[in-house]
Amino acid sequence: MARIVQKFGGTSVADLDRIRNVAGKVAAEAAAGHQVAVVVSAMAGETSRLVALCTEISSLFDAREYDAVVSAGEQVSSGLLAITLQAMGVQARSWLGWQIPVTTDDVHAKARILAIETATLRERLAGGEVAVVAGFQGVSSRGRITTLGRGGSDTSAVALAAALEADRCDIYTDVDGVYTSDPRIVARARKLGRITYEEMLEMASLGAKVLQTRSVELAMKERVRLQVLSSLAPEIGSDLPGTLVVDEDEIVEQEVVSGITASRDEAKLTLIGVEDQPGVAARIFGPLAEAAINVDMIVQNVSEDGKTTGITFTVTKADLARAQQILEGERESLRYRRLVTDKNVVKISVVGVGMRSHAGVAQRMFRALAEKSINIQVIATSEIKVSVLIAEDYTELALRALHTAYGLDG
Amino acid sequence: MARIVQKFGGTSVADLDRIRNVAGKVAAEAAAGHQVAVVVSAMAGETSRLVALCTEISSLFDAREYDAVVSAGEQVSSGLLAITLQAMGVQARSWLGWQIPVTTDDVHAKARILAIETATLRERLAGGEVAVVAGFQGVSSRGRITTLGRGGSDTSAVALAAALEADRCDIYTDVDGVYTSDPRIVARARKLGRITYEEMLEMASLGAKVLQTRSVELAMKERVRLQVLSSLAPEIGSDLPGTLVVDEDEIVEQEVVSGITASRDEAKLTLIGVEDQPGVAARIFGPLAEAAINVDMIVQNVSEDGKTTGITFTVTKADLARAQQILEGERESLRYRRLVTDKNVVKISVVGVGMRSHAGVAQRMFRALAEKSINIQVIATSEIKVSVLIAEDYTELALRALHTAYGLDG
Repeated sequence: MARIVQKFGGTSVADLDRIRNVAGKVAAEAAAGHQVAVVVSAMAGETSRLVALCTEISSLFDAREYDAVVSAGEQVSSGLLAITLQAMGVQARSWLGWQIPVTTDDVHAKARILAIETATLRERLAGGEVAVVAGFQGVSSRGRITTLGRGGSDTSAVALAAALEADRCDIYTDVDGVYTSDPRIVARARKLGRITYEEMLEMASLGAKVLQTRSVELAMKERVRLQVLSSLAPEIGSDLPGTLVVDEDEIVEQEVVSGITASRDEAKLTLIGVEDQPGVAARIFGPLAEAAINVDMIVQNVSEDGKTTGITFTVTKADLARAQQILEGERESLRYRRLVTDKNVVKISVVGVGMRSHAGVAQRMFRALAEKSINIQVIATSEIKVSVLIAEDYTELALRALHTAYGLDG
Repeated sequence: MARIVQKFGGTSVADLDRIRNVAGKVAAEAAAGHQVAVVVSAMAGETSRLVALCTEISSLFDAREYDAVVSAGEQVSSGLLAITLQAMGVQARSWLGWQIPVTTDDVHAKARILAIETATLRERLAGGEVAVVAGFQGVSSRGRITTLGRGGSDTSAVALAAALEADRCDIYTDVDGVYTSDPRIVARARKLGRITYEEMLEMASLGAKVLQTRSVELAMKERVRLQVLSSLAPEIGSDLPGTLVVDEDEIVEQEVVSGITASRDEAKLTLIGVEDQPGVAARIFGPLAEAAINVDMIVQNVSEDGKTTGITFTVTKADLARAQQILEGERESLRYRRLVTDKNVVKISVVGVGMRSHAGVAQRMFRALAEKSINIQVIATSEIKVSVLIAEDYTELALRALHTAYGLDG
C-alpha cells in the first residue's frame, strides 16, 4: 500500500466525460488499496476566461482580487471530480486551498507555498477517503486567496506530495512522458524511462513544456519521486509507464545526453562599437536588471582595434522592445555606435548529467551543426547543458542532426 | 451620512458593461459620503451552468460538493466588481462567505444564516472602503462552503443589513419596484411607493418574483428597511424611487388591497366518494406530509348522502405526480371512489393589510369574478389575503377585473 498524489491538468478535466476518465484512474489506485490525493487544474480554457475578464476591466487590476476570481476555476473542477468519484462509489471530498490550509506568502498571482497542514488529510486518507485538492491556490496569512502563477497546479501537487511524504507524485498531462526531443519535429525521438531532476529542470526551463520549472525545483529539493504520464491513455499501471523523474543514483546506465530542446522565446541584441574598457558590461546590464529584464546568453567579441568591441546578448521576445528602449535611452552614456536586434533566432540545447564525466560533448555539437552548414551565433554552457543560438529557420534541421549525432535515435 | 447595503442580482452583473453600471451606482453612494456594502449574485446564467454540471454527473450529488461548485459564481462576480470599483478610484475589496465569516447551519444547498461577524467590516466601512460581499454563500461550523438556496443573495443582503444595523437595504432588480399587479398582464398596474412587510411576504410567496420570501421574513423580523429598485435606471436617488418595504405604521394612507397576484404553480386533486367520518382528513394528509409534500388550499364538500363526501386540495405542480402516486397506493385504506387531478388551474390572490379593518373584501372579489362568469373552484383566506382557485384560461381576465374592482387602476 502506497500513498500517491495524482495531478491532472486542464485538458484532462476539460469536460464531464474527461472528468469521468480521470475519476476512473483515481478509483483504480484507490481500489488497489493506495491512499490517493488528487490535485486538479481548472477545466481547460476556464482560467484564461477568468483572466481575460480581469484584464478587460483594468490591466492594473488588484492581484488580490484577481486571485479571488481566477481561483474559482479549480474550486469548480475539484467539486465536480469529488461528485464524480462519489457517484462511482468512491469516498471523496474536495479541499480548497484555505480549507487545508495551503499557506503561502502574500505575493498575489505568483505566491509561494510556505506550509501545508496535513494532519486532517492524513487521517482522512487513512480512512480510505480520496482527497480532491484544488490546485494552483493557497491562502495568505491575511486570509486572502492566493494563486501560484501559471502552471502552479504542478507545484501544488509536488508540495502536497512532499508534505504528505507520498511515495510518488504522478503528473498526468496530454503527453505520455518526457521525450529525448519534441516528437512533432524529431520523428525518431524516444520516450525516456527515467530522467534526473537536474536534467528535467534544464529541459523545463529550455522549452519542454511538460512540467512547471518551479515544481521540478521543489521536487528536487524535497526528493519527491515524480512521474509524468498521459491522462489520455486507457489504462494506468506499470505496463504503460511514463517518465520517472528521479535522483541521479537511481539511473543505472546514464546516457551522455538525455535530451535536445529548442526554445523560440529568445531575441538577440548586439551593441556595435562599444568602448572596450573595464566597467562597460556593468553599465550596459545595470539598467536592464533594474527594469527586471532577464539577460540570458552573453558574448563579448574580441576587440580588433583595441578600442571598441561588440557585445551580443539575448532576452525573451516579450522583453525585447523594452530592452531596446532602455538601451537607446542610455546611448549617450554607453557611447556605442549601433544597436542591432534580431527576433528570428532559436536556442538549441543539449542536456545531460552524463556530460559532467564526458569530454567532447560540446565539440560533437559544433561539428554536427557545421556539417549541416548551420552558423552558431552565441554559445553558452553549464555543467549539464550546452546551448547555442542559431537562425530560427534551422530549428528542425538542427534538432534532427543533433538527435542523430548523440545517438538518441530510437 | 448613512450606512447602506446594496444588492445586485444576476442580470445586473451579467457582463462587464453591466458591472460597470453597477459600480457607478455604488460609487455614487460612496461619493455622497455613505458607508456602502454591496452584495452581488453570480453573473446571469452562471449559477444555472454550474448547477447543470453537478446534476449531469449525478442527481444524487453530495450537497457539500454542490455548494463548493455553485458558490464559485459569486466569487467571480464579487472579485470583478471590486476590480471595477478600484479602476474607478473607489477603495473596495471583495469578501467571500468564509472570509467575513457568514456562519450558517450545515444544511447544504439551503443553509440558514446563524451569524455574521461585522467587526472588521465596520472598521473598513468607517475607513471609506466599499465591502463587496459574495451573496448566496456562507460557511458551516465544519469549515465547508454552504449556499442559501435559489435567490439566496436577497437573504444575504438583508442579513448583512441587519448585522451592520444599516439604515437601508436597497435590492436592485430588473424591475423598478413592486406593482399592484403584473404590469405585463395588467396595463393599468401601478408601482407601489410603500408596502408593508406582511403584504410583501404574501406577494412574494404568491408569485410576485421580486424578492425571495425568506429575505422578506428576515427583514420583517429584524426591521430592515428594504427598498426594491431597478438596476437598469440611469440614476439613483430619491428622484426615481422604487418601492419601500416598511412597517405598517409607516404607511399613512393604507389601501384596503395593495396587490393582486397570480400563481400558476398550483395543481388540484379531488378525491370523490370518501367516507364522511372523523379522522379521514388525517388519513389523507398524513402520508403526504410524510413525503414532505406541501398541501396548500383544502376544501371538503358538504356530504349529500351523509355517508360519503369529496375532498379537494392543491399541491405544487412539481409535487403532483408524487402526490397522485401516494394516494393511489393508499386507495384501499382511504376507500375513495375516484381521484381526479387538474393542472390547468391558477391561484388568484388579493393582498392587503387594510382588509383587517374592512368588511366585504372577499365579497367584492366573488362578485367581480361572477360578473365575468369566472367559476371559483376553491377559496382560502388569511388575515390579509383572499385566494381563489380558478381555471388557468381566465388568469388575465380575472387579474384585470379585480384590479378595477378594488380601485387600483392607475
